[in-house]
Amino acid sequence: MCRETILVTGGTGFIGRPLTEALVKSGYDVHVISSKGTPILGATVHEFDLLGESSADELLGAIQASLLVHLAWFVQPGQVWNTAENLRWVGASLELLLAFASQGGRRAVLAGSCSEYGPWGGVCNEATTPIAPSNLYGVSKAALGSMAIASAEHIGLAVAWARIFSAYGPREHPSRLVSSLAKHLLLGEEAPCSTGHQKRDYLSTEDIAGALLALLESDVKGPVNVGSGEPLELKDLIALTAEIAGRPDLVRLGAVTPPPDDPPVLVADVGRLREEVGWQPSVPLREGLERTVECWRDHLAAK
Amino acid sequence: MCRETILVTGGTGFIGRPLTEALVKSGYDVHVISSKGTPILGATVHEFDLLGESSADELLGAIQASLLVHLAWFVQPGQVWNTAENLRWVGASLELLLAFASQGGRRAVLAGSCSEYGPWGGVCNEATTPIAPSNLYGVSKAALGSMAIASAEHIGLAVAWARIFSAYGPREHPSRLVSSLAKHLLLGEEAPCSTGHQKRDYLSTEDIAGALLALLESDVKGPVNVGSGEPLELKDLIALTAEIAGRPDLVRLGAVTPPPDDPPVLVADVGRLREEVGWQPSVPLREGLERTVECWRDHLAAK
Repeated sequence: MCRETILVTGGTGFIGRPLTEALVKSGYDVHVISSKGTPILGATVHEFDLLGESSADELLGAIQASLLVHLAWFVQPGQVWNTAENLRWVGASLELLLAFASQGGRRAVLAGSCSEYGPWGGVCNEATTPIAPSNLYGVSKAALGSMAIASAEHIGLAVAWARIFSAYGPREHPSRLVSSLAKHLLLGEEAPCSTGHQKRDYLSTEDIAGALLALLESDVKGPVNVGSGEPLELKDLIALTAEIAGRPDLVRLGAVTPPPDDPPVLVADVGRLREEVGWQPSVPLREGLERTVECWRDHLAAK
Repeated sequence: MCRETILVTGGTGFIGRPLTEALVKSGYDVHVISSKGTPILGATVHEFDLLGESSADELLGAIQASLLVHLAWFVQPGQVWNTAENLRWVGASLELLLAFASQGGRRAVLAGSCSEYGPWGGVCNEATTPIAPSNLYGVSKAALGSMAIASAEHIGLAVAWARIFSAYGPREHPSRLVSSLAKHLLLGEEAPCSTGHQKRDYLSTEDIAGALLALLESDVKGPVNVGSGEPLELKDLIALTAEIAGRPDLVRLGAVTPPPDDPPVLVADVGRLREEVGWQPSVPLREGLERTVECWRDHLAAK
């Protein structure tokens, strides 16, 4: 049996871990680059800092992957929007892409973001919605995406750019919406929220991993929205999470003012994902939220 | 007397040399980074490869410039449009910008390009003309520009992005339009040209250097077109160059087919440059072309 070799950066992270697990299950020879070096069963984890002094060339030469999923980035919520680390990650990502191309790479899927579409938002289509990001994170992701796509044929790669919409799931950063809410409520604390009228597009990280795997195995190139296509009012997401956590009484809607560039609607047009990639979500919202809250319950109980 | 310290990358090149000379004349303490290390009277030239393994941090720490003009890039005509070197230059430019910001930098002018506007072209305005580049050079310049502008306030810099239109002048690469023409005609060879119906916006490198200096000394931020604002039909440019070279009989209009993405009109709206920066060109086309042809005459005679 010959297994295709795939490299996943950030492969021990929030989206990376379920993806790595799915790839292992699908029979790939999975190599993970992680700055933390946390082991994952069935995958080879390389502890390596993509922002460090050493070039990734040597490591990529040793791995000889034909497939790449690049998820690694600066991920501290809040800080991420305007930190200069975004520029360092663009530089590191370009270097990684070139090293991958010159070391036997064939196809790459890179993580973009719905933030590329900017504060007008709406139901975003890859081909027709303007790219007009309002923060440095969105600008940097859009810049990297445009260069990765435009360079692909010249460096001998097939490149898909996954514009990932909102995510939730186990091992989420405690200041992201669902986890912050779950944690507060499970601790019996008040949970200050915005009015919750914003419409967003949420997928569980398990579904996002599934979508990235399907995109990787397809021959679709260029930008592809990764979302559910279903507009979800944040107040409904908040209410459902609070119900699962058993403390709807502690939710304080309207206590937080969202930032001025927060789009009222930011939802994926999933035409390409459904029709060209042939993927659709399989984790119902309630079930995904139950797993996320359960994860926090276990985490807090273990303390 | 205290002279302000300025760093110019690519400061011995086609546009860089006249700029460095103008800066020296204006009394700045001029430091030049050049991969070739050619000396320039009155400036300190540092031989350094921005694409090399060593970080620019140490060098920038030693120079402690408060001003930066970043011109260095891959410049081989023809090859430049789609080479992966463009990606390396984006990475190196981001690193340079961050090092400059952390080492006392105050204001930076970076070289963008009219190629960012893409194949529709027209009379291009910084705020209203879409950024839709058709090649990797334009995509990379646009990506870098968007990141440099969006990161400026977060890294404590004032950043102007100079979208430079067409250039001609002494020491031009022999495969660029004016020099290729001058060289062929002075050697008594036929000069195959396109029909020459394209309208372009040409400035002498001396004028471009003047515009960059004015932009540097202004407090204008963001994208600024650097051009004449005067549409020039290439056949008129060709005819004038041929007349100066004394061999209009050798010009073969229509012998070359321009690439399919060659815009019919690519001219700068110079509103910002004229009104906000307060600069306008001073080198008449005939005079600039005479100097360029003269430079080739001397060069060929010296062989």
